[in-house]
Amino acid sequence: MHSLHPLFHPTSVALVGASSDPERIGGRPLRFMLEGGFEAPLYPVNRSGDTIQGLPAYASVRDIPHPVDHAIICVPVAGVEAAVRDSIAKGVKAIQVLTAGFAEVDAEGRALQDRIVGLCRDAGVRMVGPNSLGLLNVPTRFFATFSTALNGLTPRPGPIALATQSGAFGSAAYGAASLRGLGFSKIVATGNEADVDVSECIDYLVDDPDTRVICAALESCRDGDRLRAALLKAAHAGKPVVIMKVGRTELGAAAASTHTGSLAGDDAVYDTVFAECGAWRAASIEEMLDIAYLHSTAGQLPHNTDVGVVTGSGGIGILMADDAGERGLQLSPLPAAARTEALELLPFAVASNPLDMTAQVTSVPQGVPRTVALMLDRADYGTVFAYLAHVGLSPQRFTATQAELIALKQRHPQRLLVLVMLSRPEVNAALEEHGIAVFEDPSRAVQAVAALARVRQRRAALHQPPPPAGPSVPLGDVTTEDGAKRALAAAGLPVLPERICRSATEAAEAASAMGYPVVAKIVSPDIVHKTEVGGVLLNLPDAQAVAEGFATLMQRAQSARPDARLDGVLVAPMLKGGVELIAGIHRDPTFGPMVMFGSGGTAVELFKDVAFASAPLTPLRARALMERVRSTQLLRGWRGGPQYDEQALADALCRLSEFAFSHADQIESIDINPLVVRTQGAACLDAVIAVRAPVQGEGSHGTH
Amino acid sequence: MHSLHPLFHPTSVALVGASSDPERIGGRPLRFMLEGGFEAPLYPVNRSGDTIQGLPAYASVRDIPHPVDHAIICVPVAGVEAAVRDSIAKGVKAIQVLTAGFAEVDAEGRALQDRIVGLCRDAGVRMVGPNSLGLLNVPTRFFATFSTALNGLTPRPGPIALATQSGAFGSAAYGAASLRGLGFSKIVATGNEADVDVSECIDYLVDDPDTRVICAALESCRDGDRLRAALLKAAHAGKPVVIMKVGRTELGAAAASTHTGSLAGDDAVYDTVFAECGAWRAASIEEMLDIAYLHSTAGQLPHNTDVGVVTGSGGIGILMADDAGERGLQLSPLPAAARTEALELLPFAVASNPLDMTAQVTSVPQGVPRTVALMLDRADYGTVFAYLAHVGLSPQRFTATQAELIALKQRHPQRLLVLVMLSRPEVNAALEEHGIAVFEDPSRAVQAVAALARVRQRRAALHQPPPPAGPSVPLGDVTTEDGAKRALAAAGLPVLPERICRSATEAAEAASAMGYPVVAKIVSPDIVHKTEVGGVLLNLPDAQAVAEGFATLMQRAQSARPDARLDGVLVAPMLKGGVELIAGIHRDPTFGPMVMFGSGGTAVELFKDVAFASAPLTPLRARALMERVRSTQLLRGWRGGPQYDEQALADALCRLSEFAFSHADQIESIDINPLVVRTQGAACLDAVIAVRAPVQGEGSHGTH
Repeated sequence: MHSLHPLFHPTSVALVGASSDPERIGGRPLRFMLEGGFEAPLYPVNRSGDTIQGLPAYASVRDIPHPVDHAIICVPVAGVEAAVRDSIAKGVKAIQVLTAGFAEVDAEGRALQDRIVGLCRDAGVRMVGPNSLGLLNVPTRFFATFSTALNGLTPRPGPIALATQSGAFGSAAYGAASLRGLGFSKIVATGNEADVDVSECIDYLVDDPDTRVICAALESCRDGDRLRAALLKAAHAGKPVVIMKVGRTELGAAAASTHTGSLAGDDAVYDTVFAECGAWRAASIEEMLDIAYLHSTAGQLPHNTDVGVVTGSGGIGILMADDAGERGLQLSPLPAAARTEALELLPFAVASNPLDMTAQVTSVPQGVPRTVALMLDRADYGTVFAYLAHVGLSPQRFTATQAELIALKQRHPQRLLVLVMLSRPEVNAALEEHGIAVFEDPSRAVQAVAALARVRQRRAALHQPPPPAGPSVPLGDVTTEDGAKRALAAAGLPVLPERICRSATEAAEAASAMGYPVVAKIVSPDIVHKTEVGGVLLNLPDAQAVAEGFATLMQRAQSARPDARLDGVLVAPMLKGGVELIAGIHRDPTFGPMVMFGSGGTAVELFKDVAFASAPLTPLRARALMERVRSTQLLRGWRGGPQYDEQALADALCRLSEFAFSHADQIESIDINPLVVRTQGAACLDAVIAVRAPVQGEGSHGTH
Repeated sequence: MHSLHPLFHPTSVALVGASSDPERIGGRPLRFMLEGGFEAPLYPVNRSGDTIQGLPAYASVRDIPHPVDHAIICVPVAGVEAAVRDSIAKGVKAIQVLTAGFAEVDAEGRALQDRIVGLCRDAGVRMVGPNSLGLLNVPTRFFATFSTALNGLTPRPGPIALATQSGAFGSAAYGAASLRGLGFSKIVATGNEADVDVSECIDYLVDDPDTRVICAALESCRDGDRLRAALLKAAHAGKPVVIMKVGRTELGAAAASTHTGSLAGDDAVYDTVFAECGAWRAASIEEMLDIAYLHSTAGQLPHNTDVGVVTGSGGIGILMADDAGERGLQLSPLPAAARTEALELLPFAVASNPLDMTAQVTSVPQGVPRTVALMLDRADYGTVFAYLAHVGLSPQRFTATQAELIALKQRHPQRLLVLVMLSRPEVNAALEEHGIAVFEDPSRAVQAVAALARVRQRRAALHQPPPPAGPSVPLGDVTTEDGAKRALAAAGLPVLPERICRSATEAAEAASAMGYPVVAKIVSPDIVHKTEVGGVLLNLPDAQAVAEGFATLMQRAQSARPDARLDGVLVAPMLKGGVELIAGIHRDPTFGPMVMFGSGGTAVELFKDVAFASAPLTPLRARALMERVRSTQLLRGWRGGPQYDEQALADALCRLSEFAFSHADQIESIDINPLVVRTQGAACLDAVIAVRAPVQGEGSHGTH
């Protein structure tokens, strides 16, 4: 049994701080449950020990003369610790602390919060909150919340679950959903997440048989590994997670100090992790509910990204095609035989996809279902849309069509059938009962289908992180370019043959052995940005130029940074040709090492042509990362140019990601700029590794 | 009086093809008007000459024994021409042809359509249709349509007008709006637009006192100048036009043949023209209605793009801030004094912007209006949002707050006050009556405000095209690079000193006079893409190299294209430094010459870093065009580089646009690639001008 089970399935409940006033925070949960008809015993606890909303009340949880396995605590903050102790002593398995005034307020509050969660952990009791708006198990009418959103909006049972940190955000989504007639299985607001967090709720909801689709909302995430694991569990179980993440946590100043870090916005990392783990990030509450509605109605994801559109309006058909194209859906043409059939049925139709039935459809008996049948029977569209204007507002005119459409859906249970029309709630309900979804706005219908189709695609390439390796071997000195490159070369990345030289003679000899032209760069652990001190010389053509260059570089470095330790000059072959890209690592405080790959030159900053992926990469995921960067097109015979070595690039990204993952406790960031991809092979021409400052008392990148 | 007035304000109406069956196309308009209570005389015309829906009917319009100034024709297509003749003979001023089967079907239908529009024009009669769903003047209950969307959805009067080509699209928007309780002034479906088009309807609606905001939908546009003029008239009159354009017309093959053309997607041109003329392009019907609702309620545009957000939920506040930022709005901080006041009122508030009142607001008397008052009184936000959760669902709890908010709005009539909450229709109606808009979804509220704020911004830089010049002077021969550059230089564009040379000696002399290094290029009217024949030599260092280069170029050209006419070799100075950009002209078939400006190199294609503007440009509009291209950042000390000469670039774009506008009848496209911007000045390094193939019987780029 999942350890959160007692939170959602109490067999008897104490309400500590229950109020006789049904409008007060301590009164509302009791009122909601009494009005709703919650069937397990409810024991109000109140210092007065009087009767509360018609129930006998007790002065303490300890005084309840029956077993109690769940306590809802809403006493003032000063009384919470005692209430927790009493509840634990009474033997509860689950506690909700609805009272606010803990870690969200000050250090004292944090200390109190730490104490109560410590008490719960020691006792093996799971706790939601503090500062939680409560939780609901809708089918059992366990409405343990003080949200005023329940005033007049009694929760309806349904297959949608909602797990949110912010209670106010949860109330907003709950209210909007309820006004749309959507029903819920479980709702939980995790508040301060001292114990139970949204990730663990998702994990629980995946197992919940009443839940078909999970809506979630985060303001922050403390444990990236746990979130990943929960999302992956949902993806493997086939339950879509539609997730909102508002707010942006600040990137640490250190992370911003390298090029990579300044691009690795925390928010892009959330996008990346959600996609890798098969979830869908919604940008608005409305979008989240649209997707939840569609999936809870259809009960499945579309099996491909191909859609067929049947329409009575050419304009709406084109609008939907535009929307589909913009959101990654395809509209494959109707097969020729089906087009012929369509034209036999509707001679004036535009028998392509969208299939415009035109106004004549009204004069053909069962014109709509026969056209939809063609789309379903004669092609393999994962989703078929039918735009039916406002026919749903005239139920008597729609009865026969409705019956035929339901029969069609039953014949094609594996397809999504989505109607777009203005309609009455009872018409929609009849269709929804048979798995047919109805949208009023065509663009929103397409957007919801596109999201589910993408979720399906994502399941084909989930990122299942391996267990973190043990303590990693020491990195050695990676503070110089030479040291960084040696470490990368040892990890299997392509690095040119190059040598640190301590004298002009040694430099000239090394260059002659490599072949001209060469590059020469100053090497110093104290000089990270070599170009700023004039520390790089390109295209040196012969031994004399190299010898002179050595002297020049040493002299420039000494004069620019008199205190810098100078290790010598790095001599390397000068590459010509190839495509300059960048690759790197940014250690996200929540999600650990993220691989960054992007365009070289100005495009990375000017056009944000950069994408992220969690380390480590598989070859498949390295390729997927490359596809998300437009400059990857430059490798593929761009404007008649050559084909460059994509395999070498994918290999380099994999090696880089493995190196970063296995040294996650030591590396803050890596910046390979440029990474040159050639027609054969690739080369890291420059590399900077920033080592992680040891952090007192912190593990790797999350708690396990 | 506007010539469309008789279409919308008939004093007596003949319904030609009226039907006794209130469900048939010929029966519905009569039914809607009889049920709605249209007060002017209605005369059914039907071959049977019987009683129709209780009214005496006539066999012909000519038989009506009263004056008739408006005819609605819905007889079968074969009878339309006679009905039009009869109506004109009867003396009508306006005709609607609802019958389909004209230009949209075949050539015969087009010929018939041409005949009936000719009859109307000769008689000075304005015609809507054919193939129109009709039109409505809602306040007078002139419901002259057969749209079944009116079944059960009686039109409500209100300040929104709707002009659409497609009747089905119009019905969709009408139906969705009516279900939301929105009211209309006029609605018209222009159908085949043989006479009246959407542009002219917009022009009319600007003058209509019942209309405050105009919604429009186009599938195509035949007369770009007329659309521009109508949108500009609306912008100057302060009536927002929210416009949808679905479908994409095909770019001509010729337009795609140059680099410029292939980027000038027709759709981007519509985006450009709408923006230049102060309209807002909506991507969905829902978005269009949201904006129309907001403006029809608020009655004005926000006076700036700055918004204040008051919220009871931190999460929703952040969501709205994210939405605002993504859509070009600002959230300026609350002034320090106001922050202090806010904290005195609500000690635990997060007194920034968004201003999070937190749950404590419920315990402070009039906490919400006092907080909103701070935002309105102490800062200059054009719009103040208040997120109030679901309080509108409990009208009795909201009464006092509502009264205070209305008083606040009355004190600040020039500001937009937008509430985001779940609410009852009667609560919303009371607020809307006083100019306060209410949205259920926070993201949609922000989106609508952002659209209106952008409309306001656009009014500051409208593109008012000058009247087209008379017949332009001949261009001369612009088929060679040399000819094109001479034409551009004559138009005031910066071109380097360069010379066509006929011999190696002449080339060497020319180069020596210019200074080395130089560039040499083959000149031939038959060779457009010089690099394909190896026809360009860069960086020639001295006279000998130039002389040899001359021979090389002539020989390469002769061997690659034995039949090509060779005019010689162009010698020009070799530029170093500067930023490479591209500029050009694409003649859009609807909107005439469009200026294209974009990034040089691969970015223009890879990142679509290109923007368009209608010719001719003013200096202000040239700067605005530059701002829309991200590569313009490269001119501004990018990564410590120099400041380049933006003024020279803006001048060049203006000159180019004037040249193209004054030769609009002769130029198909111009492609300047690269246009190099230097620290002082700029230079067109290469230029291709494609001359327009003369088109039989066509004027310039539209009818005037």
